[in-house]
Amino acid sequence: MGLIVQKYGGTSVGSAERIQRVAERLIAAQKSGQDVVAVISAMAGVTDELIKLAHELSPQPSPREMDALLATGEQGASALVAMAVNALGGKAVSLTGAAAGIVTDGVHTKAKISHISPRQIHELLAEDFIVIVAGFQGQSTQGAITTLGRGGSDLTAIALAAALKADDCQIFTDVDGVHTCDPRVVPDASKIDEIAYDELLEMAGAGSKVMQSRAVEFAKKFGVGFEVRSSLKDRPGTQAKATPANMEDVVVRGVSLERNQAKVTICGVPDRPGCAGVIFSAIAGASLNVDMIVQNASSTGTTDLSFTLHKDDFTLAEKTLMPLVAQIGAEGLSATSNVAKLSVVGIGMRSHAGVASRLFACLGEAGVNIQLISTSEIKIAVVIAEEDLECAARATHAAFGLAGPRRPSSAAAG
Amino acid sequence: MGLIVQKYGGTSVGSAERIQRVAERLIAAQKSGQDVVAVISAMAGVTDELIKLAHELSPQPSPREMDALLATGEQGASALVAMAVNALGGKAVSLTGAAAGIVTDGVHTKAKISHISPRQIHELLAEDFIVIVAGFQGQSTQGAITTLGRGGSDLTAIALAAALKADDCQIFTDVDGVHTCDPRVVPDASKIDEIAYDELLEMAGAGSKVMQSRAVEFAKKFGVGFEVRSSLKDRPGTQAKATPANMEDVVVRGVSLERNQAKVTICGVPDRPGCAGVIFSAIAGASLNVDMIVQNASSTGTTDLSFTLHKDDFTLAEKTLMPLVAQIGAEGLSATSNVAKLSVVGIGMRSHAGVASRLFACLGEAGVNIQLISTSEIKIAVVIAEEDLECAARATHAAFGLAGPRRPSSAAAG
Repeated sequence: MGLIVQKYGGTSVGSAERIQRVAERLIAAQKSGQDVVAVISAMAGVTDELIKLAHELSPQPSPREMDALLATGEQGASALVAMAVNALGGKAVSLTGAAAGIVTDGVHTKAKISHISPRQIHELLAEDFIVIVAGFQGQSTQGAITTLGRGGSDLTAIALAAALKADDCQIFTDVDGVHTCDPRVVPDASKIDEIAYDELLEMAGAGSKVMQSRAVEFAKKFGVGFEVRSSLKDRPGTQAKATPANMEDVVVRGVSLERNQAKVTICGVPDRPGCAGVIFSAIAGASLNVDMIVQNASSTGTTDLSFTLHKDDFTLAEKTLMPLVAQIGAEGLSATSNVAKLSVVGIGMRSHAGVASRLFACLGEAGVNIQLISTSEIKIAVVIAEEDLECAARATHAAFGLAGPRRPSSAAAG
Repeated sequence: MGLIVQKYGGTSVGSAERIQRVAERLIAAQKSGQDVVAVISAMAGVTDELIKLAHELSPQPSPREMDALLATGEQGASALVAMAVNALGGKAVSLTGAAAGIVTDGVHTKAKISHISPRQIHELLAEDFIVIVAGFQGQSTQGAITTLGRGGSDLTAIALAAALKADDCQIFTDVDGVHTCDPRVVPDASKIDEIAYDELLEMAGAGSKVMQSRAVEFAKKFGVGFEVRSSLKDRPGTQAKATPANMEDVVVRGVSLERNQAKVTICGVPDRPGCAGVIFSAIAGASLNVDMIVQNASSTGTTDLSFTLHKDDFTLAEKTLMPLVAQIGAEGLSATSNVAKLSVVGIGMRSHAGVASRLFACLGEAGVNIQLISTSEIKIAVVIAEEDLECAARATHAAFGLAGPRRPSSAAAG
């Protein structure tokens, strides 16, 4: 008999009706002959509501108490799911992260799982219970409630799947799976059937946020295969694994889009050691989250240093860096907040030449000017004007043949 | 250095602003040189909201899951109070009932405390923390979250005060304390400074619900003195203890009123063994909560059996008992739902004659007809028409001289 771990996000348990649908799914999974462990997020909106309350009381709520507060969201939702299963004639119990044996370090609000002792889960499974585990949380060795950071329920599910040696792990969410591009922008974007962990990481990091990156990294480290699928439709999603079956054939897996970006360029930075250090120390000091960093080769003794960040951080970044321009002897600072990022992602790129040239050529044909370029082994990212993003996305999607043969199922899923 | 346990009800922590006021109070108590343990209820409305959600999912939610769900209300509120203390420069940690060492039996939704291991509380107090404990909950020896029944936070506070050998226990609520009568009905009702446990029990059981009866019983059993006082005003409340200083002088401590009562009389019940048993088995089977039961001496071979219950249960009671009338050979059933109960309560009654006659005389003078009478050692209760209640209350309050000498403070508190 197999063991399956299913994770349901906040939208999937966002109302009594949806919780009932989750309960039906859990019962069906058990009826199909599997041991079932479910990981549940807080009902949509609950966590934000609790955070709002906390901030009414304190500008910087104590992390320990923040954890004790936020953990209640997942705990409550888990109890509700267990009730719903029981009401439908199933047999379920809910467990807090602590009761499920999830032990973490003591770093509140972003604890790391140190180990899992799933004794109680195994006992309950042996008694034919569907075991509902509150996601996002654990207990420190000192006995305090800890949380794993935003999106931590994904990590709970993957880590439990590893600890329980689950045969299957399904991440239920409000999208059908990972798509070759955002279907709202590229109507013929299709669902990706299989994806490598690294590709998923790059797609996630590049704006297609279907899963917490830490959870994917954990899955990669422990070789936990999982499926991202919709809780609202009964249809296969995207399988994430180390080596997708068609890895060699597929050069580019998808096109990832990220809006609301800003670009800052410090021009004429003296080409001497330490300048970049001064700049990025100041950025870190202001807690700014920088994405791409690009510096070009210098020929004139000075160079331009560019980076991107979220549009919301744009003003703070300008304010932080302005005084530094003179200090390091740079020529000036130019900044714009009307840019977006487009990335092509695929493990196949490693062994295929020509991806960059095909990307740049298709963007050129579409009349899209490229402002910045940055590459990794399995990704090429460009920064372009925000107004060009949709046109660029469709051109790129077509250029790499991502719409693929339109099978009826994938067409519907798109 | 003394140790004080303070309990705050749902209204006292009903908003961010009120939570802040609780935090200020806790810090002030610590600054006065005391070790401080606070017991916190769920924010007003939260528990009802959770119960509503549960009932959307299940007509009879599993008690185990109900406990896991409802316990989140107190856990969250406790974390918020701890945050508020920290934000005001104090030093606080919150603990779930389980972490506070409250061990219960496994009877979900109405668990009994089996023992308390307050090791962690003592350690935290030694480190100068204000310790915030989630009320209403504990952990069974099997490790499941349990709750102590509605109003259980009072019990948590009293039990912790006993386990910690606290020097003081204060129950903060939205009333000033226990009054000689409901001030909305009797404008010159005054706050009672000291009250015996038994009196408080009778007053509580008779409708002046300032505290959970179980908590008062626990306090009586373990000799825990406590004070019921307002969280909104800074003014002494009512001290509950085994033997109030003025016990000998005070004959009647207060007049307790209970509205929305119904009275059922089964007439002509054959005076033979088993009849009352049949009737009350049926009542228990229908989960009806009966209050007073009165049966008169029989002279004609039959007797009348009356009881009171809440108006809401009236229809079900009639429906349950109608078929029994013929079965036991009774003559008939008369029932009315327009009655109320008035009780005079006081330990002093035990050794004073004349309380009953003074009560009946004053009601007679006020033109109030008495429908039922029932007495205990420290209480005389009468059932009267609901429309007579206010007039009867004022007459009784005056007849026993309860308004007392109007000191400025008690006048204001009244």
